[in-house]
Amino acid sequence: MVKDKENIEVDSVAVAEQEQTSKKAAKKQAKEALKAAKKAEHKAAGKGNDNAEGESVEDCAVGRYGISEMIQSKNKLEERQFVLVQNLSEHIGKDLVWVRGRVHTSRSKGKQCFLILRQQSSTVQCIVAVGDIISKQMVKFAGNIHKESIIDIQAKAVAVPNKIEACTEQNLELSIEQIFVISQAKAQLPLQIEDASRPDTSEDTDGLNIRVNQDTRLDNRVLDLRTPANQAIFRLEAGVCRLFRDILTDKGFTEIHTPKIISAASEGGANVFTVSYFKDSAYLAQSPQLYKQMAIAADFDKVYTVGAVFRAEDSNTHRHLTEFVGLDLEMAFKYHYHEVLHTIGDTFTAIFKGLRDRYSREIEAVGQQYKVEPFKFLEPPLILKFSDGVAMLREAGVETGDEEDLSTPNEKLLGRLVKAKYDTDFYILDKFPLSIRPFYTMPDPNNPIYSNSYDMFMRGEEILSGAQRIHDPDYLIERAKHHNIDTSKIAAYIESFRFGCPPHAGGGIGMERVVMLYLGLDNIRKTSMFPRDPKRLTP
Amino acid sequence: MVKDKENIEVDSVAVAEQEQTSKKAAKKQAKEALKAAKKAEHKAAGKGNDNAEGESVEDCAVGRYGISEMIQSKNKLEERQFVLVQNLSEHIGKDLVWVRGRVHTSRSKGKQCFLILRQQSSTVQCIVAVGDIISKQMVKFAGNIHKESIIDIQAKAVAVPNKIEACTEQNLELSIEQIFVISQAKAQLPLQIEDASRPDTSEDTDGLNIRVNQDTRLDNRVLDLRTPANQAIFRLEAGVCRLFRDILTDKGFTEIHTPKIISAASEGGANVFTVSYFKDSAYLAQSPQLYKQMAIAADFDKVYTVGAVFRAEDSNTHRHLTEFVGLDLEMAFKYHYHEVLHTIGDTFTAIFKGLRDRYSREIEAVGQQYKVEPFKFLEPPLILKFSDGVAMLREAGVETGDEEDLSTPNEKLLGRLVKAKYDTDFYILDKFPLSIRPFYTMPDPNNPIYSNSYDMFMRGEEILSGAQRIHDPDYLIERAKHHNIDTSKIAAYIESFRFGCPPHAGGGIGMERVVMLYLGLDNIRKTSMFPRDPKRLTP
Repeated sequence: MVKDKENIEVDSVAVAEQEQTSKKAAKKQAKEALKAAKKAEHKAAGKGNDNAEGESVEDCAVGRYGISEMIQSKNKLEERQFVLVQNLSEHIGKDLVWVRGRVHTSRSKGKQCFLILRQQSSTVQCIVAVGDIISKQMVKFAGNIHKESIIDIQAKAVAVPNKIEACTEQNLELSIEQIFVISQAKAQLPLQIEDASRPDTSEDTDGLNIRVNQDTRLDNRVLDLRTPANQAIFRLEAGVCRLFRDILTDKGFTEIHTPKIISAASEGGANVFTVSYFKDSAYLAQSPQLYKQMAIAADFDKVYTVGAVFRAEDSNTHRHLTEFVGLDLEMAFKYHYHEVLHTIGDTFTAIFKGLRDRYSREIEAVGQQYKVEPFKFLEPPLILKFSDGVAMLREAGVETGDEEDLSTPNEKLLGRLVKAKYDTDFYILDKFPLSIRPFYTMPDPNNPIYSNSYDMFMRGEEILSGAQRIHDPDYLIERAKHHNIDTSKIAAYIESFRFGCPPHAGGGIGMERVVMLYLGLDNIRKTSMFPRDPKRLTP
Repeated sequence: MVKDKENIEVDSVAVAEQEQTSKKAAKKQAKEALKAAKKAEHKAAGKGNDNAEGESVEDCAVGRYGISEMIQSKNKLEERQFVLVQNLSEHIGKDLVWVRGRVHTSRSKGKQCFLILRQQSSTVQCIVAVGDIISKQMVKFAGNIHKESIIDIQAKAVAVPNKIEACTEQNLELSIEQIFVISQAKAQLPLQIEDASRPDTSEDTDGLNIRVNQDTRLDNRVLDLRTPANQAIFRLEAGVCRLFRDILTDKGFTEIHTPKIISAASEGGANVFTVSYFKDSAYLAQSPQLYKQMAIAADFDKVYTVGAVFRAEDSNTHRHLTEFVGLDLEMAFKYHYHEVLHTIGDTFTAIFKGLRDRYSREIEAVGQQYKVEPFKFLEPPLILKFSDGVAMLREAGVETGDEEDLSTPNEKLLGRLVKAKYDTDFYILDKFPLSIRPFYTMPDPNNPIYSNSYDMFMRGEEILSGAQRIHDPDYLIERAKHHNIDTSKIAAYIESFRFGCPPHAGGGIGMERVVMLYLGLDNIRKTSMFPRDPKRLTP
């Protein structure tokens, strides 16, 4: 991929920051230090606290630092009890501890080297200072370790008088006694974690105010994912899935798995990816709908599935992906699809509560980088009729027809109107016009213009679309014909309702959209770990 | 699909069983009864306990039976409190209850009709008998409802003096007062649930002993999935996923989602499905491995993912599918990959215990149809070296080389030898020969013939393959070259280790295999809800 302007800027700043000496000199210096350290490590096995023979005569720290051999599982070293950075405060003033982490930043200052060690979202300041057991060479070695390298340190946790504002552990620092490089990062990184972590809102105080653009981030996703915001986003995303599954399991749902390779395009054939399947062709499923419905017809009563869905749509917007994770559910009901609608609504409420209560740390971490308004919701959720929504839009001066689908701007406007009137970021719109829904949607029995279908919205964007499905095969044929659908192509679908099928309804949720909208982020690529769109297939 | 011999047999038996009258006559009869009932239902709204006007003068049960209008969510009927069949015993001798279920079987006998109502895996006997409020017409109507139709009944639960052996609810029967067909099944079913549920082991007592073959089952999966064994298998399968996730979450793992559409074939290009991706080509991921490893390099420390994986392998065996669900995990470790190996081993132990303790009902239901030996395991799990396995095989007279992979027969034989010696159906084989593992496998530091890799086995079949991966980019290149791999094609993979990566190991588990082998079933198609193989893409 071509380097864009912003990326080049980032690189040059990185270089400028690196050292005051020239790039070449710095590299040479680092190389030599590492070479010396390697030699030292190879020579001294245990605690090399007296002189070793040969060149490194004056290094009192031999064996206390260096580049470790590649960890190939030679030794178990079970005696080394590692401590998490976030738990270090329990060790202040106690025995030496081992910590593994990354060099976030490092800065040499005469006989001292300060470095910040990062472990996932936690950071702690460390110091290596020339003394009885620490040599000048060791300090130099520490100062030359490339950012993002993984190191093992043995250190004492020491309380500090003044809070260290730059770190998450603000009341202590680590006084290093041993330091080994476990995995080296290369000297020139394509992006700096500091730049990639900089708040969207921060002011231009130092005249630099570097940002990293989206493509640079995604091209170097392994680095980009290390920012505190990204660490939090994907942990919260795991939470969304977990809550979705646990809540539905508690409600008596069974998890199922549906095939992604299918023999016929499920939703009519548009926007479907083709797969070569041995000597034939097949398609990638655009939704698990037919299979969820078959599971209902097969007496599983209430089912959900979490899995990849595919849309060959050439849409390059902030909210479209060609592959995303679908949280789908389907449920038999007794007499009215509102039994299902309320189940889904309650599930969302429980997810929002779970996120608020169990992921406050993650929400806060995302808030450090991105401006996020807390997500508001009502309990029970607000349910409006589609026609009520149309009335609200008209009242706001929008011209829209009774059977016209919501355009994206109208959808967003309605979200704002609902927020202003009801103070909720989540609501349900029920009874969509029949004409704008798929053929298998059950018509409203009381008004032929409408249907038993619904959408759900977060911050004014649709995150679930669902409906009562037609479970009567003859009526399904009637509706398919009305839509000019060749019923011979969906014969298997229709046939599955000829063995007795309970009335049922369901819906599909886009996982990445839920996370994006819950956090108030502006692009779905921020909530897909390795996003796929018409222009991106890597990494 | 062509009807095979067994399928035709099933059909003809079904016909023979159906009625003693001819097929046509039966159909006509049913049609008429339903017509009359429909009329009755349309006329009488509430409790039609006196005569309606017109033709149906002598029917005292008008309004108490019939074919319901298609449930289109017109009424909520919230006053009808439905009871689950499995909870019916709590209602013996009490008020009338509503129950929704399927007609499993029905049998008319003069003025009475006996039918068995099935709800998922539960069954209960029901009776409709001519009396004060029940007419001859109503009994006739009940007797003519097609098997597998869904009905709503209002009935009294009555204790019975002799156990009803044919039902799961053996101490009661339901005396029906109202009966409505909610969804009609067609008269001729492609397979009978009774046949599809018949124990593998049952003796040929009635001279019929019908079985339904695999293709007939899979072609009509909606029916086939209704058998008690299948209801149990897929609930247990959901349990495997749930246990896998919950156990790993408790161990600090984070769930991730990895793309299924990838730009380059991950495992060398063989056996990969090609997808047309807009104007380009792409591939379906054969495993999430690269992405799991990237998540580790991105500081997620311990990750798992549950999702579809694809193998374009033209293997038509009992244990190969072209699409299956992978339970994958990857974990950074400190110094030795056994930290990961033990984590995976413990995860299996916890899954086995969870299944044993929480899914005993399902295991028993499967055992009713298939001969299943209880699954045995040791705690902690047995770990053998590959070379120990080779020695055991040699002791049993098998000729096999030190660096030779286990053939399928040898794998199975070793499973039997291990079972005989250690009494366990689960074990781990560690330290596989380097030459038979992928290029990214970390060699054994102590013996160049072996590697830091392992397989895990259930009932003598491999269900997990894993290893320490090479996390050093230069060494990875060296090993790739040794395998004659074009390193330019895996440049992105190698590059992801240049930003510092902790040592890590992991593995991938086939979900369907775990369920098949845990239950001791003979074919993986029994544990995939909608299996995909080179010859099957439907339903």
